[in-house]
Amino acid sequence: MPAPATETPLSPLAPLVTKPPVTVLGLGLMGYALADALLTAGHRVTVWNRTPAKAAPLVARGAHLAGSVREALEAGPLTISCVLDYAAQRALLAPAAGALHGRTLVSLTNGTPAQARETEAWALALGATYLDGGIMAVPHQIATPEAFLFYSGAQDPFDQHRATLAVLGTPHHLGPDVSLASLYDLALLSAMDMMFAGFLHATAVATSHRGTTATDFAPHVVAWLTSMLGMVPVMAADIDSPAPPAYAQSMDLVVAAAQNMADAAREAGIRPDHFDRTVTELKHRIAAGETEYTAASALTHLRLPARV
Amino acid sequence: MPAPATETPLSPLAPLVTKPPVTVLGLGLMGYALADALLTAGHRVTVWNRTPAKAAPLVARGAHLAGSVREALEAGPLTISCVLDYAAQRALLAPAAGALHGRTLVSLTNGTPAQARETEAWALALGATYLDGGIMAVPHQIATPEAFLFYSGAQDPFDQHRATLAVLGTPHHLGPDVSLASLYDLALLSAMDMMFAGFLHATAVATSHRGTTATDFAPHVVAWLTSMLGMVPVMAADIDSPAPPAYAQSMDLVVAAAQNMADAAREAGIRPDHFDRTVTELKHRIAAGETEYTAASALTHLRLPARV
Repeated sequence: MPAPATETPLSPLAPLVTKPPVTVLGLGLMGYALADALLTAGHRVTVWNRTPAKAAPLVARGAHLAGSVREALEAGPLTISCVLDYAAQRALLAPAAGALHGRTLVSLTNGTPAQARETEAWALALGATYLDGGIMAVPHQIATPEAFLFYSGAQDPFDQHRATLAVLGTPHHLGPDVSLASLYDLALLSAMDMMFAGFLHATAVATSHRGTTATDFAPHVVAWLTSMLGMVPVMAADIDSPAPPAYAQSMDLVVAAAQNMADAAREAGIRPDHFDRTVTELKHRIAAGETEYTAASALTHLRLPARV
Repeated sequence: MPAPATETPLSPLAPLVTKPPVTVLGLGLMGYALADALLTAGHRVTVWNRTPAKAAPLVARGAHLAGSVREALEAGPLTISCVLDYAAQRALLAPAAGALHGRTLVSLTNGTPAQARETEAWALALGATYLDGGIMAVPHQIATPEAFLFYSGAQDPFDQHRATLAVLGTPHHLGPDVSLASLYDLALLSAMDMMFAGFLHATAVATSHRGTTATDFAPHVVAWLTSMLGMVPVMAADIDSPAPPAYAQSMDLVVAAAQNMADAAREAGIRPDHFDRTVTELKHRIAAGETEYTAASALTHLRLPARV
């Protein structure tokens, strides 16, 4: 489908080369940031939102506000959906489903691998091509070098729309298994959640000292965790390799360190639950004969019994 | 105390300016790295280790191996101790305690705030000056730009030995309260432990897909967590400020995300315990009337009841 010529430049900064039209469904904080970035990059952008008023600043900058989901889908070959959840997404697409035929739907709505598979099957049955995506950025990072997005599903629509998708952040196509983007997305969100839990715990411990503020302590957290992220590829290689690990510690030292962390938390008036549980689990593993702590052995213990 | 002149250059790269002598007690992986860095920087280094053979490569490069702890302490104005724990440190220093009079002891041994206070009192009673420290680096990072060290206790010995301590990594003096270095150290180790737990969980989830290796996934973990560390100063400012937070989320969205992470883990055959607990706790907080998730409110819930 050839891109229609842009009649008037959107702004003095708009590129001279014509960019293909894109539709964005959903103008929450994230959907708004996506539409805004595409508009800035010189795309002809059609938007739809349950509450049309939210589109006003985008319309003032040249976006087209569609009066219906069908009209939005029909505005071009590519629709990016970024709404509350998959149930909301299905509810708004269903009445206009016929318009998906021959077009590409990219869901950047948060969901699970199962929802991605289900939505792909639904879209393919309608004659659409489908990509599931995961946005690894907060809204203000969209279209900055920090932003990256996962996509999974058919290669063709990804290749076809790659340049458009690249406006939002670095696009990583993970493969034809459509569940991969949400699997990776939820895995990374889990890692972030646990890192933030660690930041909060550390800050609670450090600020138990009356003279220390969270702001005083934060640069140390950032410097330390940034430095320790350098261990991640080392541990990953250890997990994958059958060779002896590059990073191994005596279980006795690891349990002693966990006990120190639990004691320091308790002494500071902070819940030591996480480290108490770690101490208990490590002692069970020592009792079961483990002498060395490695990333590979730690990962094994994360698997549910049925999979071990 | 003037530094003795170095009789022979240690290597063609040794600085021309004479550096003060330093003693290092303990040549485990970390103690060895400290002595090695000081030697490389051109200091006259005296070492002592329970197993003297470990010192051989350092002696070959110009270090002096003391025959006793007393001889080691008497070799200069500054002794850095890096042994297994505070009990081992006290046991080896006690018989030579008289030699600490008028000298500075810096403990980089891992310990708790209570142990730091106790050791400072003991050292001051002997007429020594004392600094407690925490090394924020793994051994191979010593003397690289990534390494930093916390010190706490009297300002004078820190100022006096600052240039020597700076060889090991960026020195941060946290104040006269001698417990601060170990408090910050254990707080940061806790944050690291939880970040690594998050990395392992995320890797377990992602590698449940048969085509994904930990090595494939690791760069995404590093990129995402590096990007999200940018939120730490924002959340810290929110914790300190009485003003409305810059980063707040609806509790309903946060609990839905935690539920997705628990479901994705379970579906991948990975223990969802952490996220199940998070969901349960968030639901209790919603039931108790909390509508907004902020770093400040999350931190409040980490405090033990007696302190709330």
